[in-house]
Amino acid sequence: MIQMPDQSDLLSLCKRRGFIWPSYEIYGGVAGMFDYGPLGCVLKNNIVETWRSIYKNREGFIEIDSETVNPVQVFKASGHVDEFSDLITYCDDCKEPFRADHLVKGLHENPDILSPKELEELFRKNDVRCPECKGKLGPVEDFNLMFKTTIGPGSSRVGYLRPETAQGIFVNFLNLYRYNRDKLPLGVIQTGRGYRNEIAPRQGMIRMREFNMMEVELFVDPDDKGWERFPDVENEKMTLIPKDGAEIVITVGDAVRKGIIANKVLAYFVYTTQQLMLTLGLDPKKLRFRQHLSDEMAHYAADCWDAEALLSYGWTEITGVADRGCWDLSRHAEFSGADMTHFRRFDEPKEIERDAVKAKHKALGPKFKEKAKLIAEAIESKRPEDIKNGSLSVTVGNDTITLGEEFFEVARIKEKVSGERVIPHVIEPSYGLDRIFYSILEHAYSYDEKDDYVTLRLKPNVAPIKAGVFPLMDKDGLDVLAASVYKELQGSGIPSYYDASGAIGRRYARMDEIGTPWCITVDYASVEDGKEKGTVTIRDRDTREQKRIKVCDTEKIIRKLLSGTAFGSL
Amino acid sequence: MIQMPDQSDLLSLCKRRGFIWPSYEIYGGVAGMFDYGPLGCVLKNNIVETWRSIYKNREGFIEIDSETVNPVQVFKASGHVDEFSDLITYCDDCKEPFRADHLVKGLHENPDILSPKELEELFRKNDVRCPECKGKLGPVEDFNLMFKTTIGPGSSRVGYLRPETAQGIFVNFLNLYRYNRDKLPLGVIQTGRGYRNEIAPRQGMIRMREFNMMEVELFVDPDDKGWERFPDVENEKMTLIPKDGAEIVITVGDAVRKGIIANKVLAYFVYTTQQLMLTLGLDPKKLRFRQHLSDEMAHYAADCWDAEALLSYGWTEITGVADRGCWDLSRHAEFSGADMTHFRRFDEPKEIERDAVKAKHKALGPKFKEKAKLIAEAIESKRPEDIKNGSLSVTVGNDTITLGEEFFEVARIKEKVSGERVIPHVIEPSYGLDRIFYSILEHAYSYDEKDDYVTLRLKPNVAPIKAGVFPLMDKDGLDVLAASVYKELQGSGIPSYYDASGAIGRRYARMDEIGTPWCITVDYASVEDGKEKGTVTIRDRDTREQKRIKVCDTEKIIRKLLSGTAFGSL
Repeated sequence: MIQMPDQSDLLSLCKRRGFIWPSYEIYGGVAGMFDYGPLGCVLKNNIVETWRSIYKNREGFIEIDSETVNPVQVFKASGHVDEFSDLITYCDDCKEPFRADHLVKGLHENPDILSPKELEELFRKNDVRCPECKGKLGPVEDFNLMFKTTIGPGSSRVGYLRPETAQGIFVNFLNLYRYNRDKLPLGVIQTGRGYRNEIAPRQGMIRMREFNMMEVELFVDPDDKGWERFPDVENEKMTLIPKDGAEIVITVGDAVRKGIIANKVLAYFVYTTQQLMLTLGLDPKKLRFRQHLSDEMAHYAADCWDAEALLSYGWTEITGVADRGCWDLSRHAEFSGADMTHFRRFDEPKEIERDAVKAKHKALGPKFKEKAKLIAEAIESKRPEDIKNGSLSVTVGNDTITLGEEFFEVARIKEKVSGERVIPHVIEPSYGLDRIFYSILEHAYSYDEKDDYVTLRLKPNVAPIKAGVFPLMDKDGLDVLAASVYKELQGSGIPSYYDASGAIGRRYARMDEIGTPWCITVDYASVEDGKEKGTVTIRDRDTREQKRIKVCDTEKIIRKLLSGTAFGSL
Repeated sequence: MIQMPDQSDLLSLCKRRGFIWPSYEIYGGVAGMFDYGPLGCVLKNNIVETWRSIYKNREGFIEIDSETVNPVQVFKASGHVDEFSDLITYCDDCKEPFRADHLVKGLHENPDILSPKELEELFRKNDVRCPECKGKLGPVEDFNLMFKTTIGPGSSRVGYLRPETAQGIFVNFLNLYRYNRDKLPLGVIQTGRGYRNEIAPRQGMIRMREFNMMEVELFVDPDDKGWERFPDVENEKMTLIPKDGAEIVITVGDAVRKGIIANKVLAYFVYTTQQLMLTLGLDPKKLRFRQHLSDEMAHYAADCWDAEALLSYGWTEITGVADRGCWDLSRHAEFSGADMTHFRRFDEPKEIERDAVKAKHKALGPKFKEKAKLIAEAIESKRPEDIKNGSLSVTVGNDTITLGEEFFEVARIKEKVSGERVIPHVIEPSYGLDRIFYSILEHAYSYDEKDDYVTLRLKPNVAPIKAGVFPLMDKDGLDVLAASVYKELQGSGIPSYYDASGAIGRRYARMDEIGTPWCITVDYASVEDGKEKGTVTIRDRDTREQKRIKVCDTEKIIRKLLSGTAFGSL
């Protein structure tokens, strides 16, 4: 049986020990907002660094940091102004707002696909009432989930806080493509805040109004959805739940060969996501990848897989990995007029046939005299679809001239071309940082009922504090030596914690509870044997095994353990 | 003479090479907003890591990450709702908005202290008109500079984007103080976005609507403004411009002894700021600390020093280091009702005399019978200032009872107390990350007119790319070896750049222009001599000196150079 931690025990630990704090508590709090305390902030940064090390160091992707306040045009193009909403209803009596679909849970198997009309109908039929005061519910309406603001003075320039970091990458595509010297694939990552003005968030860190994302946008040639390093992973296994619903364990290679995952590059990044989650310490038994059903997926997406973690909230989406096709760039090209294509160069120039507009020089000469040549050039730069009702408008200098069919014709021509323009497709692994953070904590939380003892079995690479440093007694020079060990570790960038108060067992317990993998204790032998020979004990969190090591080796040994050496082999 | 880079040359380099990009260019752009491109993002992160290494690793401060959307109460308390504004005027004709004080430059020596009335008067007297259309200017009004939004549905819950990260630390003071086990000093850092809805920003990265900060809030005992490590720095020198205006070079110790800087802890962090700026590569000749004049400083601040960098914009504030007294915590205590005090424990209990409210038991007994004891306790928990017009209200169980003077008296008592409650003072070094970023670029920019050649002399610790890796020819296995050197460096976390195209001189020039300190070139000798003995050239950006090193030593040598070994001593 899979054990689940008690949610309120974990949240109380998080608050008490400084992982996360509900925001603005002294002012009564704001639902759906949390601050990262000292331990949480380090753990969160460690997650980001692990993600960076995979995408930047291994894959060579580039990172940007774009603004969070965006002008309305961006989200008109992305579709968020029109589509990013939940259905809301207010109680007629107490005026409390509710997410309409949440009020009919149990009355319909998939409430979030219902229209406002259907929801109102369900309310009526089942006499659904306000959960707070039993009042009558008002009409069901769209509520846009973006935080709205105004840029600059006056109210004319509407801005929104971004609901995802992705758009900052898409609107910079031209800059990024130039940086990458006009080549594909082009992998770009961004981490930062996202905002979603939830109607009534009630699920802790799972539903936050202000949250953190780590997004990856990989631009690929639509005709080349392979991946150079695919062979490295094709025999690795993943737990998948394809559309048809039955869980399977399958290799990356087979998933592509059998058509379960749409293409190699997508499969590679589904697997990369699994690697990242396990590196961060998620329990492999509580991790799976679920394919979006056709009606769940955005209409433009070719395929989409959610990484789901089993939490006390049930199976919860923590990451989405999607093949978004050409949607994002097409939309921004359409709304901005910018050319967001990639020039795909052929191996060797190809001869193609196409319809072209040709100038009738014999007619142009007599009519336009010395201007005829320029007009002819302008005509031939046009495409057949520019001809409207048999006329063609061309601009020469400051003049726009409209020409009849006597001056041009459409002809089939052959030409050699060195390549063609295509809109890149986007592969998007999008990571919900706060949900991953919370999943790590739930999966690491271990409670021993017999001893009423909590151990947070965080992996050393993500643990916020790597070493606790204690003097056995707070005197006789033990304190001085312990403080110097602490300063050496902390000063060299190994986050450490000095603790001289209380019984040694309680100090171990405090470190176990926040996931510190190792504790160093300075005792009388440490000082008596002198600087060269003196030893300290080092204790392992998970086995509680203790060894003696030389004081002067402490930093070296912690670094060895951090790089993966087993405690037992010290 | 101090050389200044050409601003537009530098900005064009930044854009072309991917340091910073004006935001939303495909949609016409938004003034005062910039995105960090791939190189800028790394440089910015390097600045943050350097700041962290000083404040976290060396000083042992803790870091938090709080939300950017804040409810209105936070900024009522901080004063931003009432005070954080600029004066605005609109042109009556073209409706363009302007910062009123910017329109009277040259007409008054200190326009930003003028009132709306005084500005309107100046407009009238000097016939100041709209700079765009020469239209008549309208009235001068306050314009609050916070971005406003609404939290949740309905318009009742007003929220603002934070104008500084500091408030997130202050509102969490109780959580932080508990984390620090009720001890002072308590040092807390935070980095993240700040927002300032500028009226008409026109100074590039110096005046951004959405910007990045690194803030430090150090809570200290108001009676103890020393600092443990002060002796380490007291003989170090700083360039100061005290209130009286004459620049001096003085030691940290003398600055405190002569009363120029208010106290040791403030002086220590002014010096720490100088250390940080020089570590990041600012030119010491273009850095100074200027003390705020009395009328420039917030009324509650005890002392404040700006770090100023000499830029093409003139001397520009890039950091403020202030002793803010008890202002911040007092205000949040007042507005939230929370007790934001520190319990200052005496070395040994003290006997003090104070006025106390005493119950008159003889009168209470007959009147209140069995309740008399509880009422007496309630009376004695009150303070003399709770007595209003000779009456005292006490609450016992659910009853509030108002008592006349026959039931209590005020008496002088002696008691032993183990400590007292004080509101901590705040020392705040507040770093403008984007301005520091830009200052680093300006100070590193070096243009050789003779060769029309740009070198960005970034310090290796902040340079976004540490090593360029080139095959001399893109064939004959040189490409394969160079690619494997690149992958080794990049994979081990040393940001590197592979470049196989163009003449080798152009490749060096590309790297010099983005500040890459070293370039590795793989040539025929590298492959011919085999894996063990093969060598590559390594070239130093600033001296252009080249040496041959073993292929297999490349990573080790780059790490040595990064840790400070001189190129000449390789």
